[in-house]
Amino acid sequence: MANKSISVAAPATVANVACGFDALGFAVNSPSDVVTMRMLDEPGIRILPVRGPYGEGLSTDPAKNTAGVAVASFLKRIKSIQGFEIILYKNLPLGSGLGSSAASSAAAVFAANELMGRPLAVEALIPCAMEAEKIACGAAHADNVAPALLGGFVLIRSYEPLDIVHIPCPENLFCTLLHPHVELRTEDSRKILRSEIKLIDAITQWSNLAGLIAGLITANYPLIGRSLQDVIIEPIRSVLIPGFDVIKQAALKNGVLGCSISGSGPSIFALSTDEATANKAGQAMQQALSEIDLTSDLFVSRINMHGAQVIKF
Amino acid sequence: MANKSISVAAPATVANVACGFDALGFAVNSPSDVVTMRMLDEPGIRILPVRGPYGEGLSTDPAKNTAGVAVASFLKRIKSIQGFEIILYKNLPLGSGLGSSAASSAAAVFAANELMGRPLAVEALIPCAMEAEKIACGAAHADNVAPALLGGFVLIRSYEPLDIVHIPCPENLFCTLLHPHVELRTEDSRKILRSEIKLIDAITQWSNLAGLIAGLITANYPLIGRSLQDVIIEPIRSVLIPGFDVIKQAALKNGVLGCSISGSGPSIFALSTDEATANKAGQAMQQALSEIDLTSDLFVSRINMHGAQVIKF
Repeated sequence: MANKSISVAAPATVANVACGFDALGFAVNSPSDVVTMRMLDEPGIRILPVRGPYGEGLSTDPAKNTAGVAVASFLKRIKSIQGFEIILYKNLPLGSGLGSSAASSAAAVFAANELMGRPLAVEALIPCAMEAEKIACGAAHADNVAPALLGGFVLIRSYEPLDIVHIPCPENLFCTLLHPHVELRTEDSRKILRSEIKLIDAITQWSNLAGLIAGLITANYPLIGRSLQDVIIEPIRSVLIPGFDVIKQAALKNGVLGCSISGSGPSIFALSTDEATANKAGQAMQQALSEIDLTSDLFVSRINMHGAQVIKF
Repeated sequence: MANKSISVAAPATVANVACGFDALGFAVNSPSDVVTMRMLDEPGIRILPVRGPYGEGLSTDPAKNTAGVAVASFLKRIKSIQGFEIILYKNLPLGSGLGSSAASSAAAVFAANELMGRPLAVEALIPCAMEAEKIACGAAHADNVAPALLGGFVLIRSYEPLDIVHIPCPENLFCTLLHPHVELRTEDSRKILRSEIKLIDAITQWSNLAGLIAGLITANYPLIGRSLQDVIIEPIRSVLIPGFDVIKQAALKNGVLGCSISGSGPSIFALSTDEATANKAGQAMQQALSEIDLTSDLFVSRINMHGAQVIKF
């Protein structure tokens, strides 16, 4: 008899969110990575050749694939030698700023936990998925994996000890995500950041982050809009993103609340209060990019409020 | 017939609030400055000799007294040449970190607005009181005058344009304020700050401020406590405050949520979930200070939710 199998989807995530560098992230409803997992009768993690539009060339070595690393960390944590077979459907491009590696590891670790009868709470899966971020981008960040697992807006208040704070957000918040077809390695886009910043800029940044958190929790859309400003990271990283300024202007002209870099880029996100604005702005952003002869993918969705979840597949 | 007179109290305020340097402040119920004002039949601002425990030696020149400067700015804004007589009861020591200059200017400008039949909304009085902060501490800060006028927790998201955000807070939040009898000039305690900071410290700071804002709005006391940390300003300024470390330890050992410098010091604030803890911690803080032969004033009160208000006096 075939062992029980399960399919789990984990969503793309927007980290940093303009003023919340290395602190804030949120999940969207589309796109998602999907993992189908099966328990094996013998120990060991076996990854089948990766499928999906961005699966080509991805490692099937469990120590080099974020899904494998996350599941290995999970097994270590629950002191189990259970074996798994993993099929990964890679729908998120790597190096896109969409939290691609986080989506794979979140889906895999969520699936493993489900198959084992939920020995851990979802929050406790975050450190397992963070382990996988180390091999993906050189640091065990949580601002993609936490929202990929939990959904919604998530604040990483502290790493030692890990303190994950769910930030309530209004129901009518739509995200436009533009993924230009250029690749940026997270490591490279971190390298260009300065290790010292001006105190006066930091004050501007934390005042905006405080405003954004207040705006999200109290459903104050104009405040969210005024707070979506990044005076520290965006001015530096945006030079790596072709056409960033015209794309952002196109979004703002079309009525979005705010627009900035998704994660470490090159993807660009915008937030809107309604789907029509989110779509219209997205088309304008895509058009602005096409004028410098670059193609892109466009995703428009509500904020994802559930995170990773079991799907029929 | 004597012209109409009015008395207004405006409270002490705690600016910075650990992680919210130059961005966040809140008001307490005690102590307060009081202004009694009377409309004159002729133009001009007349300040009578300042009364109260800290009135001695304060200037009665309207251009050098924060109450006078604030009222002059108010009159300019409403294009009036109305004259006023101001009696200031100075209950807050200058250079204490309790928002002393802000309390006087807030009370005065609030009183003038009341006497004139409220030509301006309270929020519009903030820029008038900020003008007075320029002469008091060299910069037009709003993190004391805004909570002194409005009450509660107030975020200054932006100065240009001025964006004042009221932050809801839980009902059961008590503030312990210890004022050591040493004077620190705001200008001096600003001078020792570095104009450049580490990005990694800034991330810690804005993560904590985001946590504090979320904790306040959602009444999550443990989160408020975990977030009340200042890794940038406190380590530098606390060296100017005799016994700071032992006072803070005394507060934390007695169950407060958190403890840090009030404004630019030397006063020290702590937040607690109940009055008994706030009192007990205050006594322990005062005791710790007395062991290095320094006297102090101790104030314990709820968060002030109304700001400046007309009183019978």
